[in-house]
Order: sequence, then C-alpha cells, then structure tokens
Amino acid sequence: MFVMDAWYMAAWADEIEKGGMLARKLLNRSLVLYRLEDGTVAALEDRCCHKGLPLSMGCVVGDHLQCGYHGLVFDKHGKCVKVPGQERIPASAKVASYRVVEQDHIVWIWMGDASKATCETVPRHEIHDDPDWTWVKDRYLIKANYQLITDNLMDLTHVGYVHQRTIGGTPEAHSEAEMSTTRLESGVRITRWLLDSVPPPSYLAAHTFGTPRVDRWMEIEFFPPAVVRIHTGAVDTGTGAREGNRAGGFAFMGLNLQTPETEKTTHYFWSGARLGKPERAADTKAELLQSLPVTFGEDKIVVEAQQTALDENPDAPHVMIASDAGLAHARRIVSELLAKEASERSGQTGQTQ
Amino acid sequence: MFVMDAWYMAAWADEIEKGGMLARKLLNRSLVLYRLEDGTVAALEDRCCHKGLPLSMGCVVGDHLQCGYHGLVFDKHGKCVKVPGQERIPASAKVASYRVVEQDHIVWIWMGDASKATCETVPRHEIHDDPDWTWVKDRYLIKANYQLITDNLMDLTHVGYVHQRTIGGTPEAHSEAEMSTTRLESGVRITRWLLDSVPPPSYLAAHTFGTPRVDRWMEIEFFPPAVVRIHTGAVDTGTGAREGNRAGGFAFMGLNLQTPETEKTTHYFWSGARLGKPERAADTKAELLQSLPVTFGEDKIVVEAQQTALDENPDAPHVMIASDAGLAHARRIVSELLAKEASERSGQTGQTQ
Amino acid sequence: MFVMDAWYMAAWADEIEKGGMLARKLLNRSLVLYRLEDGTVAALEDRCCHKGLPLSMGCVVGDHLQCGYHGLVFDKHGKCVKVPGQERIPASAKVASYRVVEQDHIVWIWMGDASKATCETVPRHEIHDDPDWTWVKDRYLIKANYQLITDNLMDLTHVGYVHQRTIGGTPEAHSEAEMSTTRLESGVRITRWLLDSVPPPSYLAAHTFGTPRVDRWMEIEFFPPAVVRIHTGAVDTGTGAREGNRAGGFAFMGLNLQTPETEKTTHYFWSGARLGKPERAADTKAELLQSLPVTFGEDKIVVEAQQTALDENPDAPHVMIASDAGLAHARRIVSELLAKEASERSGQTGQTQ
Repeated sequence: MFVMDAWYMAAWADEIEKGGMLARKLLNRSLVLYRLEDGTVAALEDRCCHKGLPLSMGCVVGDHLQCGYHGLVFDKHGKCVKVPGQERIPASAKVASYRVVEQDHIVWIWMGDASKATCETVPRHEIHDDPDWTWVKDRYLIKANYQLITDNLMDLTHVGYVHQRTIGGTPEAHSEAEMSTTRLESGVRITRWLLDSVPPPSYLAAHTFGTPRVDRWMEIEFFPPAVVRIHTGAVDTGTGAREGNRAGGFAFMGLNLQTPETEKTTHYFWSGARLGKPERAADTKAELLQSLPVTFGEDKIVVEAQQTALDENPDAPHVMIASDAGLAHARRIVSELLAKEASERSGQTGQTQ
Repeated sequence: MFVMDAWYMAAWADEIEKGGMLARKLLNRSLVLYRLEDGTVAALEDRCCHKGLPLSMGCVVGDHLQCGYHGLVFDKHGKCVKVPGQERIPASAKVASYRVVEQDHIVWIWMGDASKATCETVPRHEIHDDPDWTWVKDRYLIKANYQLITDNLMDLTHVGYVHQRTIGGTPEAHSEAEMSTTRLESGVRITRWLLDSVPPPSYLAAHTFGTPRVDRWMEIEFFPPAVVRIHTGAVDTGTGAREGNRAGGFAFMGLNLQTPETEKTTHYFWSGARLGKPERAADTKAELLQSLPVTFGEDKIVVEAQQTALDENPDAPHVMIASDAGLAHARRIVSELLAKEASERSGQTGQTQ
Repeated sequence: MFVMDAWYMAAWADEIEKGGMLARKLLNRSLVLYRLEDGTVAALEDRCCHKGLPLSMGCVVGDHLQCGYHGLVFDKHGKCVKVPGQERIPASAKVASYRVVEQDHIVWIWMGDASKATCETVPRHEIHDDPDWTWVKDRYLIKANYQLITDNLMDLTHVGYVHQRTIGGTPEAHSEAEMSTTRLESGVRITRWLLDSVPPPSYLAAHTFGTPRVDRWMEIEFFPPAVVRIHTGAVDTGTGAREGNRAGGFAFMGLNLQTPETEKTTHYFWSGARLGKPERAADTKAELLQSLPVTFGEDKIVVEAQQTALDENPDAPHVMIASDAGLAHARRIVSELLAKEASERSGQTGQTQ
C-alpha cells in the first residue's frame, strides 16, 4: 500500500529522449513515459486495452503511441484515437494517463487523484541548475521496500558502521553528536552538530580549512512520502556555523528519492552535489562519481539484507533505540497520509481508486 | 483447466526414437513417451508409483519401463509387472497410461476419458506425406497460455504490425481485406480475400506470377481445442481463385498445434509447407527454415509479453474490436467444450476425473 | 515441521574458525555460529533485534557479536550489552541463543527446549579420532526434504539401480540379501548379509582377500531424527563374520547427517571412513575422495527429482514394497517424536514454541 496522492520521482529527465519511450513500473503499475513533440513528457498505462500488450513495445507516432500488436493508437490522455480496419472506436477503448511535471532535471509523477495534484507541492532542488554546485546522479533498483531506504537515511549513526571503509570516521563521533528533530509543516528535519571536531578525510581531501578543527553539521530533511535531502558540511571552528554562517567551508548536498516499484523493490534515484568552483566542475564530478557509488553500494547491501530478513520473519519484533527518533517521525507521517487516504476512499461510497 | 476429451499433439514422431524415452509435461501432467518393439508409441505417467521418481530417469527394457531407483518394471498399460526382491506385486502398483495415435508424422495423445477416444477424430494433415509439398517443422516452448497463441493466429491483422520486418507488407491491406467467418461442424473457418492486390515480397521471391497484380487468399481453420491451420496463397488476378481455381500459383500451408504444458506455458508445434516442385525441395526447405523461425519468434515475444501483462493485471478489462470475431468464435467453442465436460463430470455422482 | 528437541549436526568443526562467523539456516531458522575466545562455539539467531540485519554481516568482538548496521553488541547468550549513543539498554534487546556441543569433529546444535538438552544423548562417532580409520567428509546442499535422504539410505536395494556405474554390482544380489530389521531403544538397525558372495570391484581394489568368495555385511543404523550410520564390509568366507568376527577384512563406515535447512532443502553432511593402515592414510583419503562424491552425486540427483515430483503431485499415493520396512520404521519414529512434541506443546496452556 502506497501513498497515492503525492509526487514521486519517475525518471531523470535525460532518461526520456524525444521520440523514445521509457517503460517503468512505479507503485506496482506499469507505465510508459514519452516526450510529445513540444518536448513535454506524457505518462500512460503501459498496457493496450485490447490485448494487453505493453504500449512500450509499439512506437511513438507524433504525440501518440501505437500498439505493436494490432495497431491501435492512443493520445497523450490515453484515449484510443484509431482502430485499424474499423470506423467506430469503442468508448471503453482507453488507457490510464498520469500527471507529470518536469523540473530541476527530474520527471515527477502523480499517480493518485489527479484533481488534487498541484504543481506547487512538487519538491524543488534548484541547485541542479546552480553553477556553484557540481553534481552527479544515478538510479539503482534496490530489492527492498522504499521505507527501508528512508530509514537508512534518517538515522545517520549507521555511517560509522556501514561506511567504515568510506565516509565513516569514528563511530562514536556520530553516536554522540548533538541532535535535534523538528517536525516541519509536511515533513521532518533532523539537525546534528559535531562542534569543534576533527574533519573526516573526505572533507580534508576536498577543502582546505583554516583551522585544524571544524564545526560540522548534518541536516536531514524528509519530504513525504519518499524524498530525503541531506545537507552536510563544515567550516572553521568558531566562525559561527551554528548561528547560520555556513559560507566558505565544505558543503555537500545529497538528494535521495526512493520511488516504490513494488512493495519489495524500489527505484532509488540519487544525486550528490558539492559546492565549489565552477571551473573545477569536471574534477569534482570525477571525484563524486568515484566515491558516491561505493558508499551507496554499501547501503544497498544492508537494506536488501534487511528485506530478506523481513521476508523470513515478517512478525519478528523490532527493538527501538534512541537514534530511531527521526525515522519514527517519518514513518508516522507516511502512516498518517495512508490513513487519510483510506478514510477518504471509504467515505466515497461506491467509489474505488 | 483444459479440454480433456480431445486429441492434442504430444510430439513430432521423430522426437521418439526406438529404445529411447521422451519426457514431456502436457496439460499439467508429466508423461513419458517411448516406442514399443513393434514401433508403436506408448505413453505413461512419468512417476513411479513407489517413490515418485520419474520413470524417464530409468530405462526401456523391451516393451517395458524400469524405474531407476528400486527397479520396479511397468508394461505399456502402466501395470507394474516386477518388484525386485518380492514375489507378490501389489494390486495398486500401477501408473496411468494414455491413448496415442501416430499419423502424418505427428504423435497425438488423448488424456481424457479413454472410452471416448476415436481415431477418426484425429485431425489430418496429409500434405506432410505429399511429395508436391515441401515442409519444415519445430517446437517452441512458449511462456504463455495456449489460447493466446490461438488468438494470435485467428486475427491476422497483427501481421502488418508484429511482422513489419518479415511478412508484414502494408498494415492497411490486411485491415481492409474482405473477411468472412464460418462456423464449421466442430471449428471455425475465416476466409480473407485481397483481390487484385500487389503481391508481397515473399510471394514474388518464391513464385513468378503472370500478372503484376494477384488475387490473394488467407484461409484460417480452427480445430478445437488447439489446432490452427492457415492456408495462404495467390494466383494471377482474374483467373478465378475466388471461384475455386487456385492452381498454378503460390501456396503456403502453416500448421500450428499449441498443446498446453501448464496454464502458462505451451508446447507450440508448427510446420510450414510450400507447394512446389519436388526437385527443388532442398532449396525450398532452406528458404522456409530461414524465414519461418524469424516470423514465429516475433509472435513468441508478443504472446509472452501478453502473458506477463495478464499476470500483472488479471482482472483488467479487454476491449473487443471487429477483427476479434474469429478468435471470439474459437474461444466460445473451447468454453462450450469445457462447460460440457464440467457438466458431464458433475453428472457422474461419486466419480471424479 | 521438524522434531525440535533433538541434536542436529550444525557444521563440521573446521567450518568455524576462531574470529570468524558461519551463517547457516537450520530448521528454517537463520543462525550465526562463532567461536568464543576459549575456543568453544556459540550459536545465535542471525538477526539483530533492532533492524533485522543478519548479525553475520557484522563482526566478532572478543566473545561478542557487533551488528554491522548501528553497532549494537550481543553476548553469547544473545543479550544486548551495548547500544551506541545511549546508556540504557532496552530489556527486550536480545536475540535467541542455542545449545551447542562440539564432539568427534562435529558441531551439534539443540534448537528446541534447552532444558531438555543433555550432552549424553549426542550421537558419538569416535572413529573420527581413531588412527586405524582414515576418513574424508563434505557437506552438500540438497534440494529435497531430509527424510527423502534418510529413505534413500534405509533401503539399500537402490544401490543396484542408482549406483550401477559405481558401487552397484548385480541388482539381484542386493534384492535377495538376507535382511533383518531391529528396533533399538531409540532408532532402528537393519542388517543385511550376503554370505559366500563374490566381492564387488571396490572391495577387491581396496583389500586382498584370502578366499575368492566373501561373507559380506551391511549394517544400517538410524538415530532419529536425522542420522544414519552405515557399516559395510566383508571377510574371507566361512571365517565367522556372522558370529561376530569381522577382523582382518575390508570395512567401511559411512556417517550421514541430514539436517533440514528448510522443508525442501537439506544440509547433507557425510563422512566416509575406511579401516586400514595409518601409514597408507594419504592414499586411502585420495581413493575415498575420488569415489564417494560420485556415488553421493548419484543419490543427490534421485532425491531432488523425487522432491520435484512430490511438489508436482503432493497428494499422489505411494505404493509400499517389502524393502521399505526399514525406512517405514524410521519414519514412524520421527512421526512419534513429532506427535509427542505437539502434545507437549498443547499441554502447556498459553505457551508456544
């Protein structure tokens, strides 16, 4: 069961070429995404209403999709506009279509009640177009429920253990960091401060600090149902980072979008950006591409092992610990949204989603 | 659920060598086919009644099969005739046996009520022994329900889309062909005429016509539950093909036998024959072997994708179009046969199949 | 459903190195085995009680295991002794632990009611430490229920058919052997005698007999729920083997321990030992390693095919034959133990295993 009335990331913008199609299953539904002649993206159910063949096995004809089995043609709204060999088109000849927004290099999709979809609520990530930030991205198919990935990101004490060989540092430093959790209007923010601490090797490699010790922050924001943005960085100790002055140091921005494919598999989209000199962008990209996939690969192993363990022991109890506060918040928000949708559905007598 | 009281193709005759065994699952049952010393084929349940080992893992001993685990021996009727180490053979020591007919290079099997099996109702295909016809054959295991293959064959408007790169031609020509559907005593015949039309490249390659345009036919016959024969050809336009004079032109005969392995997998046996000069048989065979597997491979991709879509959305509605008339007929006949068998079974109080 | 209050083989002793961990699923439960600093073996549930990650993905820290996700530490009793970043350890923070005994190079485990586990009932196999015996061993993961392996071992008439190419000999000799079945205090013993018989090639290759014919025995002992020991051998005919004098001939001891992984997969541990001169041990080992895996591989194919057949036809009847006497005994003993445990559980109101 997924939150339906929400924006999920469907694809990176450059995954959908003009004239091409992208077949992808999201929230248990098979979709086909394609670009119209004006460059905007359309999303249809990937299943011809005649014999069920995926439309993505057919071809794009202008703004339409033609099925590759018996040639039925569908417009961007999913309406069948041609049945070869007959004049009349049955009224029931149509496939589902979905609202799509392309923004910040991301294609977002709304798969629930279209009347509730408002572009204003699409999460923004403007640094993807900010020349001061250099970024890289990818998509992994993870064999785990999307919330296990959110859990992972919302409790960074795992960094010391899972990422011991990469970005870890001393486990104790992470466990003992000062932490505060704030519920936002629609989400959660966790802020962790490691004041007057030794910068980790990856920071030193990327930036020259003016002092041997730094004030370091990690800011984790959750936007329900499935986006986590992590802002980390450090400046020379005592220069007022805590009070808001984060300029002139090291800064990294990780965007994580875990869109369910099924209950047990997830399209994990991520981007990693570093604040820096635009003229060094190529080097920075190379550095990010060398380090981030290794780190995310360590998380992939963990969450997939967790899913396997859950499948084996679905009813085994889980003990909560202090550092679960943030993820517990995030899960509660998702549960509330699910409950809200369920109650709305049951209130609509005779209607089903 | 399958029609049981019917002849299905079990194997090509040359798949069962003398002294050898062929293990094959048909209609959800594991069978072993083998040749007796007089050359006829016997078919037994492929499961020793003692410990369940497939008899096909044992060996042929004369007209008998010996289990490879503890040496029990079974005759062609499935009766156990030897248990090593003991004199008395338990009365319950037997496996199921099935009626088999070998004809036209095809081994047919009857897996329902043996008392209803009559050789006269075995579909014939005499051209397999006619020297004027040259033919090739194969068997594909298709990951789709057998009726999806029948559907495919009963609506040839798909040719223009699925086989665009092979035997397609202009899609419109197929959609606009004149078509008539006739219900036979036990089956359906669809006849399509493309009078005064441009012959497709494959026809021109195989035959020299006397006129630039031809009268072309496609005759599709369905023999329930799972045989489709397709007779296609063309003669010089205006020479009376429509009135029955089909001599002297190009003619192709496709035989399609889709025997269920399980509900979702099918042994798709096919042969393709061309009318022509016996002295050119080797060349014709080579041509057929070059083209037919490519075309059938295109259908395989489509019906397997359909099965996957069905598994994902078993309850999604399907829109009917005009060209579905023939396959709807065929499906209705199968449904009637299934209903008839179900009612016969429920009428037999205390009996089960 | 498995007999729980019993000793099963968990591993060969040398599979668990000091400082290392062995993850293994036994009786449907995922376990991690590791050595404490004093060299003894501990066994814990392989699932952190916090987020469910297998503890075997973490590391050994002295006598403890540390989870690789958020660093929780567990002692050998499964009690959580550290949660990074907090003082208080929740009382519910614990994982299951199991009784383990290491003996005769075998690590045994008791996964049922620990209060009933007594070391005295661990089956012994002292020849693993007897210099007059030379042995080799291995573990196969068999895709079949463990009882199918026991069945195989308890009816040696299969030797003539399954092992025709290896240790078979004449099938009839095995079927006609004199056989007696004795129910032991907790188990079964089957004794088979082939008096005054021709020794099989493998015996002749390993031993020089004083007479052309031999008195040959096969003694199969079943220790419930899942151990079968087979003692075979032969001495010069007429020298009193039947009366107990087995000295001076050929003797082989096979130990078979079929520990369920799941209902349909089994860790099949085996050792094969030959009585002989210690100075020839290296040669004997090489000979055993050359022959035993081939023979056991033949059995693997059979029992896995049986499991597949059972999955296809779970309700198909099985005919019993005379040589099933021994395995029927063994199955009855297992059924009695299962029934006993079920009745004990239902007697414990409000308690579940």
